[in-house]
Amino acid sequence: MDLAISEAEKSRGLCSPNPFVGAILVKDGSIIAKGRTQAYGKDHAEVDALKKAGNQALGATMYVSLEPCCHFGKTPPCTQAIIKAGIKKVVAGITDPNPRVAGKGFAELRQAGIEVVQGVREDKIRRQNEAFLCYIQNKRPFIIWKSALSWDGKYAASDGSSQWITNEKARNLVHTYRAASDAVLAGIRSVHVDDAMLNARGVRGAKQALRVVLDPQLDLDPGSRFAQSAMQYPSLVFHQAHMPDKQKRLNQMGIDTIRVAGNPEAVDLDEVLRHLYQLQISTLLLEAGSQLSESFFRKRLVDKCLLFLGNKILGGERAMLSGLKLPSIDKAINLLDVQVKQLEGNILLIGYPEWQGFCEGATAPQ
Amino acid sequence: MDLAISEAEKSRGLCSPNPFVGAILVKDGSIIAKGRTQAYGKDHAEVDALKKAGNQALGATMYVSLEPCCHFGKTPPCTQAIIKAGIKKVVAGITDPNPRVAGKGFAELRQAGIEVVQGVREDKIRRQNEAFLCYIQNKRPFIIWKSALSWDGKYAASDGSSQWITNEKARNLVHTYRAASDAVLAGIRSVHVDDAMLNARGVRGAKQALRVVLDPQLDLDPGSRFAQSAMQYPSLVFHQAHMPDKQKRLNQMGIDTIRVAGNPEAVDLDEVLRHLYQLQISTLLLEAGSQLSESFFRKRLVDKCLLFLGNKILGGERAMLSGLKLPSIDKAINLLDVQVKQLEGNILLIGYPEWQGFCEGATAPQ
Repeated sequence: MDLAISEAEKSRGLCSPNPFVGAILVKDGSIIAKGRTQAYGKDHAEVDALKKAGNQALGATMYVSLEPCCHFGKTPPCTQAIIKAGIKKVVAGITDPNPRVAGKGFAELRQAGIEVVQGVREDKIRRQNEAFLCYIQNKRPFIIWKSALSWDGKYAASDGSSQWITNEKARNLVHTYRAASDAVLAGIRSVHVDDAMLNARGVRGAKQALRVVLDPQLDLDPGSRFAQSAMQYPSLVFHQAHMPDKQKRLNQMGIDTIRVAGNPEAVDLDEVLRHLYQLQISTLLLEAGSQLSESFFRKRLVDKCLLFLGNKILGGERAMLSGLKLPSIDKAINLLDVQVKQLEGNILLIGYPEWQGFCEGATAPQ
Repeated sequence: MDLAISEAEKSRGLCSPNPFVGAILVKDGSIIAKGRTQAYGKDHAEVDALKKAGNQALGATMYVSLEPCCHFGKTPPCTQAIIKAGIKKVVAGITDPNPRVAGKGFAELRQAGIEVVQGVREDKIRRQNEAFLCYIQNKRPFIIWKSALSWDGKYAASDGSSQWITNEKARNLVHTYRAASDAVLAGIRSVHVDDAMLNARGVRGAKQALRVVLDPQLDLDPGSRFAQSAMQYPSLVFHQAHMPDKQKRLNQMGIDTIRVAGNPEAVDLDEVLRHLYQLQISTLLLEAGSQLSESFFRKRLVDKCLLFLGNKILGGERAMLSGLKLPSIDKAINLLDVQVKQLEGNILLIGYPEWQGFCEGATAPQ
């Protein structure tokens, strides 16, 4: 199963909004084929492996990280392909939470006389496909909050300068995270202050994520690097104000615009997420400033935190999340499953806010 | 030499203000004795090893992490003991920066016909004895700034509650650091807000550091845990105001008091450090709140940083070092040689402010 998980990992960021799944075929103690989820609309891992194995698949055991699907989606059901190939036994990881599968895949295999073992290495697989699981269960993207701070929690020096708090290694890693996301979201202020492009640079074979800006008043500067690069990288602006001229101008530059509810200061986040869900965005990287970050935290719309710490002390009052008022320490947001990565003097902290395990119970759009 | 360094490590916190040194005697390819610095006033590492080896020392090679002393201090010169024992060769780490030694030890050994190799594993030994080197070179203690913050850099929640930002493992480690320090320093506000005792608890065989409080107006509450435990743990208060009654009261409780220059808000830090130097405090653990920490940073009086990060987000405006105004990012305090320790979900970051390497160039009392 660990091999299937490793195989699945190779499809991370390449098959969204499908989960990335690995399938290994074993016969007489030897691996006869490895498969993994192909691009969206192409073969699932099971079919990928079966095609590679050909006639050899007869009588083999399949190790697969997710329950095989049993419905016609973009591709025919995997269960039928497994039955037809004469697979003898299926060892599976997690159950597919998609209501069209949700155990029915296993039932179908058993009915066809195939031995099924389910629930192997579930924790690891749930973590691997955390975004997909959130997307299916909460009908909204999995939201990864990313921030870059000094040791003392400041996002900029007193004069607002912040380039660069983190080192090149950390910044390169941000590009890798962008490439592995379906969309990257920032507020209009961050885009202007940093003249941020929000694209993935320097990542080999990177798929470019949808660049999303929350811009209630359509203030986006047409001369910004973001706007100027819209023909090259997909771009979407959510706004609240009705300003047809500004909107048209952005559309002509190649920037999509969606008008949502909200107020002149802030667009409605639930509505934004509803739209992103419909656009099949399953992983959303949130690269917001302090104020917009606070809005997401306040609504419990953060599933995972990536905190880059530059090896600096900045001092001053530009402290991250200072507008987020948690009354006392017992109401603090705890971070679970903390991991640390060392980046040549910088640090990346990874953690999951306690209000949820893999998104359960988080505020979700209806 | 690595063995000598490990041997020296066993004396950490037990021989201050002497450096902790290790000495290994090798003859015919075998280790015949190991020595390390004994308590202040007792044998140095070289003599400790020579005594253990007895007559065997004749013709042996000595590996020692610091240049052997050549002056009468609390103990007779080690150079004489080495010569008398008939050591053939000395392989030494760093030169002793003490002006009474400073190369004269090596010269004396060479004059006696002993082969001397010096400068082995210097970086490691300088780091090991960073406090001693600072103490000798800058005539002030080595200052270790310790703080415990949330991921977003807050030292307390909005209502001031801060117990506990960090977990038990992190707090236990703080006690270990206290035990390895000669003094622990805090401001009167921290002592009152947290009712802090500043002693080392739960550390086997812990030597209790001198507890130092900066208390300009002698506001220390006689009912505080700090004051109440003064008969048990050495305690010293620096004040600026002349208030004989208050002072007498504290003295009667077992608390030493020293009046220094300053103003009603703050005592003069240089004068405080001068006194601590005279008291032979070579390692000072600074457990200050934000404001007092800022004073130390402003005067570049921080040699090493220990930042404990609890796995929490606190939000709010109680941000560490927000009163420290560094004008722009290129004036940030960089932290070098960053190390990370994982403490069951909490993190300890260790780093050295860039304004100095091992204290050179730091503001020092004259």
